[in-house]
Amino acid sequence: MTNILLINGSSRENGNTEQLADVMLKGISCTRMNLRDFFIQPIVDQRHVPGGFTAVADDYDQVIETVRQHDVLIFATPIYWYGMSGHMKQFVDRWSQSLRDTRFSFKAEMEKKKAFVLICGGDDPYVKGLPLIQQFQYIFQFVGLEYIGYLIGKGNAPGDVLRDELAIRQAKYWNQFFQSL
Amino acid sequence: MTNILLINGSSRENGNTEQLADVMLKGISCTRMNLRDFFIQPIVDQRHVPGGFTAVADDYDQVIETVRQHDVLIFATPIYWYGMSGHMKQFVDRWSQSLRDTRFSFKAEMEKKKAFVLICGGDDPYVKGLPLIQQFQYIFQFVGLEYIGYLIGKGNAPGDVLRDELAIRQAKYWNQFFQSL
Amino acid sequence: MTNILLINGSSRENGNTEQLADVMLKGISCTRMNLRDFFIQPIVDQRHVPGGFTAVADDYDQVIETVRQHDVLIFATPIYWYGMSGHMKQFVDRWSQSLRDTRFSFKAEMEKKKAFVLICGGDDPYVKGLPLIQQFQYIFQFVGLEYIGYLIGKGNAPGDVLRDELAIRQAKYWNQFFQSL
Amino acid sequence: MTNILLINGSSRENGNTEQLADVMLKGISCTRMNLRDFFIQPIVDQRHVPGGFTAVADDYDQVIETVRQHDVLIFATPIYWYGMSGHMKQFVDRWSQSLRDTRFSFKAEMEKKKAFVLICGGDDPYVKGLPLIQQFQYIFQFVGLEYIGYLIGKGNAPGDVLRDELAIRQAKYWNQFFQSL
Repeated sequence: MTNILLINGSSRENGNTEQLADVMLKGISCTRMNLRDFFIQPIVDQRHVPGGFTAVADDYDQVIETVRQHDVLIFATPIYWYGMSGHMKQFVDRWSQSLRDTRFSFKAEMEKKKAFVLICGGDDPYVKGLPLIQQFQYIFQFVGLEYIGYLIGKGNAPGDVLRDELAIRQAKYWNQFFQSL
Repeated sequence: MTNILLINGSSRENGNTEQLADVMLKGISCTRMNLRDFFIQPIVDQRHVPGGFTAVADDYDQVIETVRQHDVLIFATPIYWYGMSGHMKQFVDRWSQSLRDTRFSFKAEMEKKKAFVLICGGDDPYVKGLPLIQQFQYIFQFVGLEYIGYLIGKGNAPGDVLRDELAIRQAKYWNQFFQSL
Repeated sequence: MTNILLINGSSRENGNTEQLADVMLKGISCTRMNLRDFFIQPIVDQRHVPGGFTAVADDYDQVIETVRQHDVLIFATPIYWYGMSGHMKQFVDRWSQSLRDTRFSFKAEMEKKKAFVLICGGDDPYVKGLPLIQQFQYIFQFVGLEYIGYLIGKGNAPGDVLRDELAIRQAKYWNQFFQSL
Repeated sequence: MTNILLINGSSRENGNTEQLADVMLKGISCTRMNLRDFFIQPIVDQRHVPGGFTAVADDYDQVIETVRQHDVLIFATPIYWYGMSGHMKQFVDRWSQSLRDTRFSFKAEMEKKKAFVLICGGDDPYVKGLPLIQQFQYIFQFVGLEYIGYLIGKGNAPGDVLRDELAIRQAKYWNQFFQSL
């Protein structure tokens, strides 16, 4: 039995990113985590400071604990300014801290997991979202996550993406894929 | 007389990004703004909410006011996970709010400005930093900022970038360029 | 009535690229042109030579004449070494000559057309084929072609792509799209 | 003693690509090979044909023999339509044949070599040339070539690139690098 975690980087409730994720994950048992519900401090790069990273009083530990408990990670984020949302970026930036965390081996654990990317945007996402897809490729390579695939949707006002027939068809393909895990 | 603003997205003081910026801007009069010194909330996408964006109690207005007062914007950020830092991303994400701000015309003002990108990273930044360069291209196109150019440096531990002779040579080229403005 | 032209850059008959194009264009009236059936010389860059380009004794004129007679251009090419095939590249390179051809206005004609890209590859085409997608974006922008969209398929041995369910589903979406033109 | 080979994909003599290569390689002993002086047939993908690739009567064997005899390969090509020139593409496409050639182990030999990329273009090469840089990254990764670095120059009419001060400075950096090999 595979544990799936949806990591949602959207800042608004029920936006296009969530709606497309709903189509993709219909009938699939998974945990949903909205990053906007957690308070995550920006990384402070202390990799080269004597003593290393200091503990941060925020919700990051709780979030990464949830990540650790799942086998498949779905990174769902609206395309904000041709990149992932600030919510998602702040979260990923903190992985630098987890890489040095001695309480567990972040990289060894990530190497056993798989990752999927779902992005939605309004300005030509099928082309202008591609640098973001490439960034996720590099991110996953760095920690050893297997890149399952990605799904791009187009939409501005909430609900737009449900009329993006190309995205919906792909979402249904991935639905079957996640069903089969 | 051109007003130059260095927008620094680094989380640590005197890291490689700042050191490379120092070389590039030696002897050049410019304003320096460290985003880490300001508290900027994540964007909440209210573009399609009746009433639009609500005022946010943080330092963003102060930061964007500084941006408005300058002609050339230098976006300097370490490459965190193959993208701009969370500090920088949170800042840029909020431009969506400025685009709807009726107190001034954000886009009309940006169209008169020029932009430069300086990024530093440790993991093959000359190749793996390229999606980030492309994102800035799309960002600048969207608001009409003229893309002057970019500078990539390599470094992990602070000071590393000063031994990246290729970056230093280019920094000196851009120094002359900014002198000539 | 829209005239559709399939420009096929594959070097082998009935390879994955052609098979995926067959699915996408099933039941759709279109002209098929296999670039491998034509002899096209490499461009010689004579843009800055007195007198400009000299006539070339090959099949390029015939090929470009066919292009001119169609409204929608489908560029179908296997991904060879993460780019378009040499056949396709030699063809596109010669557009530089057409841009200076005084017998017709190449750019003005292209601006009225639309373009679609279909690529197939064996080595992670969904990610490693993205730079090729971006190149086509720049190519189309330069001559004013409207970028309808793209389709990526995965396969090595002929027939592989028919088992790429994600590609097939998208091909069927585009089939309906082309039907509706 | 390192053997350096300049593989020149330009279609014209003494164009910007060659001129920038001249600056970069000033005083450095290296072999120069102009692909335009050789007749190279387009690849015919026979990877999945019984019997495999058939011998081709052209100059490819001679060209690849020269490649085999060198330790550092400099791929110099004008940016034609945001990609490498057709000359260069036809050459690289044929590597698929060399990979199956039983007379020598192409990949094992390439893994011992290093590669450098030099590209020149007229339309915003510093940004629009980046997909080409990424393609070379994938190409080199596939055969195990170590990616030394790249140099981008700007120019249309021959001689333009000599006024691209940023490119010239970098060329001089790489000159010292190649001197030190």
